[in-house]
Amino acid sequence: MARIRLGMVGGGKDAFIGAVHRIAARIDGEFDLVAGALSSTPEKARESGALLGIAADRAYGSFEEMAEREAARPDGIEAVAIVTPNHMHAAPAIAFLQRGIHVICDKPLTATMEQAEALAAAVEASDALFLLTHNYTGYPMVRQAREMVAAGNLGTLRVVQVEYAQDWLTEATTGKQAEWRTDPARTGAGGSIGDIGTHALNLACFVTQLSLEALAADLQSFVPGRPVDDNAHMLLRFGGGARGMLWCSQVAPGNENSLRLRVYGDRGGIEWAQEDPNYLWFTPFGEPKRLLTRGGAGASGAAAAASRTPGGHPEGYLEGFANIYLGAAQAIRAAQAGERAAVLDLLPGLDAGMAGMRFIAAAIRSSRADAAWVAP
Amino acid sequence: MARIRLGMVGGGKDAFIGAVHRIAARIDGEFDLVAGALSSTPEKARESGALLGIAADRAYGSFEEMAEREAARPDGIEAVAIVTPNHMHAAPAIAFLQRGIHVICDKPLTATMEQAEALAAAVEASDALFLLTHNYTGYPMVRQAREMVAAGNLGTLRVVQVEYAQDWLTEATTGKQAEWRTDPARTGAGGSIGDIGTHALNLACFVTQLSLEALAADLQSFVPGRPVDDNAHMLLRFGGGARGMLWCSQVAPGNENSLRLRVYGDRGGIEWAQEDPNYLWFTPFGEPKRLLTRGGAGASGAAAAASRTPGGHPEGYLEGFANIYLGAAQAIRAAQAGERAAVLDLLPGLDAGMAGMRFIAAAIRSSRADAAWVAP
Amino acid sequence: MARIRLGMVGGGKDAFIGAVHRIAARIDGEFDLVAGALSSTPEKARESGALLGIAADRAYGSFEEMAEREAARPDGIEAVAIVTPNHMHAAPAIAFLQRGIHVICDKPLTATMEQAEALAAAVEASDALFLLTHNYTGYPMVRQAREMVAAGNLGTLRVVQVEYAQDWLTEATTGKQAEWRTDPARTGAGGSIGDIGTHALNLACFVTQLSLEALAADLQSFVPGRPVDDNAHMLLRFGGGARGMLWCSQVAPGNENSLRLRVYGDRGGIEWAQEDPNYLWFTPFGEPKRLLTRGGAGASGAAAAASRTPGGHPEGYLEGFANIYLGAAQAIRAAQAGERAAVLDLLPGLDAGMAGMRFIAAAIRSSRADAAWVAP
Amino acid sequence: MARIRLGMVGGGKDAFIGAVHRIAARIDGEFDLVAGALSSTPEKARESGALLGIAADRAYGSFEEMAEREAARPDGIEAVAIVTPNHMHAAPAIAFLQRGIHVICDKPLTATMEQAEALAAAVEASDALFLLTHNYTGYPMVRQAREMVAAGNLGTLRVVQVEYAQDWLTEATTGKQAEWRTDPARTGAGGSIGDIGTHALNLACFVTQLSLEALAADLQSFVPGRPVDDNAHMLLRFGGGARGMLWCSQVAPGNENSLRLRVYGDRGGIEWAQEDPNYLWFTPFGEPKRLLTRGGAGASGAAAAASRTPGGHPEGYLEGFANIYLGAAQAIRAAQAGERAAVLDLLPGLDAGMAGMRFIAAAIRSSRADAAWVAP
Repeated sequence: MARIRLGMVGGGKDAFIGAVHRIAARIDGEFDLVAGALSSTPEKARESGALLGIAADRAYGSFEEMAEREAARPDGIEAVAIVTPNHMHAAPAIAFLQRGIHVICDKPLTATMEQAEALAAAVEASDALFLLTHNYTGYPMVRQAREMVAAGNLGTLRVVQVEYAQDWLTEATTGKQAEWRTDPARTGAGGSIGDIGTHALNLACFVTQLSLEALAADLQSFVPGRPVDDNAHMLLRFGGGARGMLWCSQVAPGNENSLRLRVYGDRGGIEWAQEDPNYLWFTPFGEPKRLLTRGGAGASGAAAAASRTPGGHPEGYLEGFANIYLGAAQAIRAAQAGERAAVLDLLPGLDAGMAGMRFIAAAIRSSRADAAWVAP
Repeated sequence: MARIRLGMVGGGKDAFIGAVHRIAARIDGEFDLVAGALSSTPEKARESGALLGIAADRAYGSFEEMAEREAARPDGIEAVAIVTPNHMHAAPAIAFLQRGIHVICDKPLTATMEQAEALAAAVEASDALFLLTHNYTGYPMVRQAREMVAAGNLGTLRVVQVEYAQDWLTEATTGKQAEWRTDPARTGAGGSIGDIGTHALNLACFVTQLSLEALAADLQSFVPGRPVDDNAHMLLRFGGGARGMLWCSQVAPGNENSLRLRVYGDRGGIEWAQEDPNYLWFTPFGEPKRLLTRGGAGASGAAAAASRTPGGHPEGYLEGFANIYLGAAQAIRAAQAGERAAVLDLLPGLDAGMAGMRFIAAAIRSSRADAAWVAP
Repeated sequence: MARIRLGMVGGGKDAFIGAVHRIAARIDGEFDLVAGALSSTPEKARESGALLGIAADRAYGSFEEMAEREAARPDGIEAVAIVTPNHMHAAPAIAFLQRGIHVICDKPLTATMEQAEALAAAVEASDALFLLTHNYTGYPMVRQAREMVAAGNLGTLRVVQVEYAQDWLTEATTGKQAEWRTDPARTGAGGSIGDIGTHALNLACFVTQLSLEALAADLQSFVPGRPVDDNAHMLLRFGGGARGMLWCSQVAPGNENSLRLRVYGDRGGIEWAQEDPNYLWFTPFGEPKRLLTRGGAGASGAAAAASRTPGGHPEGYLEGFANIYLGAAQAIRAAQAGERAAVLDLLPGLDAGMAGMRFIAAAIRSSRADAAWVAP
Repeated sequence: MARIRLGMVGGGKDAFIGAVHRIAARIDGEFDLVAGALSSTPEKARESGALLGIAADRAYGSFEEMAEREAARPDGIEAVAIVTPNHMHAAPAIAFLQRGIHVICDKPLTATMEQAEALAAAVEASDALFLLTHNYTGYPMVRQAREMVAAGNLGTLRVVQVEYAQDWLTEATTGKQAEWRTDPARTGAGGSIGDIGTHALNLACFVTQLSLEALAADLQSFVPGRPVDDNAHMLLRFGGGARGMLWCSQVAPGNENSLRLRVYGDRGGIEWAQEDPNYLWFTPFGEPKRLLTRGGAGASGAAAAASRTPGGHPEGYLEGFANIYLGAAQAIRAAQAGERAAVLDLLPGLDAGMAGMRFIAAAIRSSRADAAWVAP
């Protein structure tokens, strides 16, 4: 089977997430990166393209040019990965969707609700797929958790505890990553809530299949002069009566990338932590706690389908990310055959993206109203 | 040095916490249990007394009788432990305080605010000591955490995450313990917030030395028909600008007694879990995470003073509880010598108890007002 | 029920293990310490006695005097705890056994095989009980492990991995504890193998109920000039075909008191670590790993019988040690009634002590023969 | 930079390790798989080739044909991965080496010492590189551990504890993987010692840079009728005076792929476990234990050089494996430029392979001599 021809917008030298997308796209051998608008600086775009083995005539200086010229080639890209800062998601995504090119976009959806709505319209108007890399949903044990909840292993859900704690912004920020992620013009109005809070919410909703009905948020900017939040505390109310809490922080020393989810129902509870992703704790009420391992005796079909190695061979962040790309490849090939791939049920897309945008807006609105309840 | 003569109110056969108090009182050999009003059923009171080696004439049928007769004996009790359900704390405490007998009382302070205020008046009017067994403050690494915060190892505090999760009330309740702890007449208006939420708050405040300025609470009674809360989510605001979250639950399957505290400042963070109490995680910002162990290389004077064995010999719940009793003994001996023991700074008493009562009341008020901010 | 009158030999000021024995004897309120030969220095013996509330006329200057005079008193001690260095175990034990006074002796049995044999003869000639504080057998989850093995939960045993690692002798030794424990005249010919290796072996044999048939040992004294081993590596062969390894070390930086046991059979495996003693990992082959907790859903009758609190309230070293004393009390009371207490099946005594002595001797013999197989 | 043209011998459908090699080769985009002799069954070879996107004329029926024809093509493969069962390593490796094609070979080196010696001769006679995928050396924290040992952070090494435990062969074996791995004709005379014991030894030697001087081994075949060992216990003596133990097992229920290394010197100790590979515990003697994380504050240059993502983004088995391939690419490009890549110091090759073969032979010899010391 021929590899899917992939382009990339953003992700030039020194970019973090662009390199992650490229590895994720390579792991299963389903994509070939053949074109790029890797930087808004033309020279850097060319250099980055050369380093990545992109032909010189397909290392574009702008996404507009890339969209136009690739759409015109018989061997043009079939899909594009968008890995720019948040404020630069909507425009390229729309440009490629309008040309029928599938889009794999980094999260959050956009920097502003206006951009989000424009993008939503483009997605709805296009036959092409739009996928959002809420990559934590790609972890095998996260998919198993979702499957277990759906199977009723936890009974009726009551309590959802989710948190995403980091410490890299504990002090006033420097460096490329820190700069754009704390600049409202590029990152959007949300700081930690947009960068990691959306991941936390998405993970909770992906696993529980609950919808968020209301939140009460208390946002903080602990570092003096920081224009966006760097810590947030929220109460959550879900459809069906479950309640929850969400904490996200970029100022919690000792936390690197501590995304953790705990879900409790009237029949059992589960716990999962991103930094130790091959484990899923499961306690059926009244029985001993079990440590389910990816590939082990308690692993489900959902986990197996998202795994590449037997149990005991730790898979990590890149493999989870690659599961989004693998799903994208399956969905794209199905779409090319005029079909809808079942894996799309597992892949975050526009809905997840809009939910994230509404979450950001609601959190800000609630916090400004002294943590009043707000429907997202 | 002669042992301190101790009496006990409550704690007859089948009681949980009474047995804990007795072990705690024995561990360091500072007390002799010589009198008791162990049960409101006279026959059971006698039987329980006999089992505990209490002389028949000092196994009383009521605390009133015990207070009167012990106060009249030349060898009467010097201190009394009150281990009855919450609604039966105030009356005996007042009776003994009025007779100059030191009181060691289980938490929360009382079942109602009215009882609390009456008790407060009695404490203030008495020369006798009043101590409250917020026993988790007795753990060596909790005391070290407090010392580290005070020493500035964490810098200015920003975020406090505290939780206390259990699962024993996941289903409709049966059994003596469950019954009184979910009966408002005996436990007070708070369910989980009184039984364990007060412990969580007390732990957070003990370690951080912050005062709680406001809370926004969302309480739930997940088990149908349960008249008190069995799960609670709260946002917290502390004096000095720190913010926090508190979760307490008795319906979280897989959690036995999972009291955990995490505190983050601008220079470092700490994490502690009651079920693994000999460990304290400490991360100075920008340095590797350290696992401090009770008795190990990173243990402080505060931890050493509360320890009985070298590192690697796990000490647990009973030893932590015994540290309250050991402190009580030191404070009582000092009081008998007309002095004030320095250890009183570490021992929870009326202030902690009133803070707990205000916390319960505020949480209920806030929750009824849809999680509005309320000052406790 | 009246408390059992207890004496103590050794355990004066600054002693570590004497204080542990005293706490263990107090926790359940079964003993009263009423006499002592606490130090070989008469003045220190008196001072220590006074500190412990022992009457002046029962704070003896020598164990010989104590044995003679206590045996002559109508209210003389019923039992004695011997907590002296190893070379001082046999003589006092024999003196008390000959007078029908029950003996609770610290481990290892003695410093030399000659002493051990003399002691064995005295035990056999006496009606009094002789118990040895291989205290790790007192942990609830250790007793559960033994029960599970006996119940066949692991199937036929194949592999036993046991280790006991410390780091406190990493450098040349100073301090009272280090001095006698590395002095062959007082500790015996074994260093780490006697002090902690015997604990490791005892734990393995207690849980598995296997007998050690042969060992091949490679002993080291890593610290220059140290006259006894401070690290030992052994291959083990047990009756019935199981094989094992034993590692003990006092020079392994980062290990405080890391006694760990893993046992594997053809139907399952268990793992236990002394520093986290409330947990027992159990994997039935082909099923998910389970974390059994003391007092939790998977706790057995054996664990419950050795517990004082519900699950989630960590019990530790002192409670495990106290279980030896509690068993001793039960056995003594039964003996006084002319019966044999069932708990004696769980209590280490002469057999365990002789097994330890043979283990030490065999390890030294094997190591001198270049790790040849030696039957202990 | 053009990708390196890679061929593969073995690794057809249903193969485990072939798929791993292919992912490892893809992760960094340094290789293109363009040819294969994927199966000894011609039809399966073609099918597997087609699935992998290998041109039909380069999907060979035998390695001999592949070696001959690829060597003759101007665009022939530059390197070949050999992922067949052990007895089929030497012949293809020799065939490609003789044609100047670089070889990346799975471990252990071969099934027999004769094969190993023939291969060694071929390696020495060839200008091409020979690399062996002792992939655990590719983990970032393993490389950091080696760097720390070399830097003297542990002082003079004393004790090495290494183990590799699995449970998948607990019962009589079925399935393709189990069959060849327990068949002496295909796997060699060693069972667990060859399949995983060699990994354990290699890891220990890689980190410590010590040479194994002698071992005393006790091998077992616990499953009746199994012709090779499934469990092994060994004492180790290293050059310079360090001593160690090695345990490998395929019959230890509850262990998936539990490779663990602990190294202790007179100044500190480290601990690492393959299933949680992003962590390295480090205790400088007399200081608190530190949890070093890949990408965290304590990560070294060696770890950073082997990492693709920041701390907190777990990297796993495939990334570690990919580090071998990344190093291979660097070494091949350097060789093509007439240079020697520095990374070769980190890459296992013939020496590691021969050490493994001698280890297997010595272990068998020792065990047959009742665990006598044998020099490998």
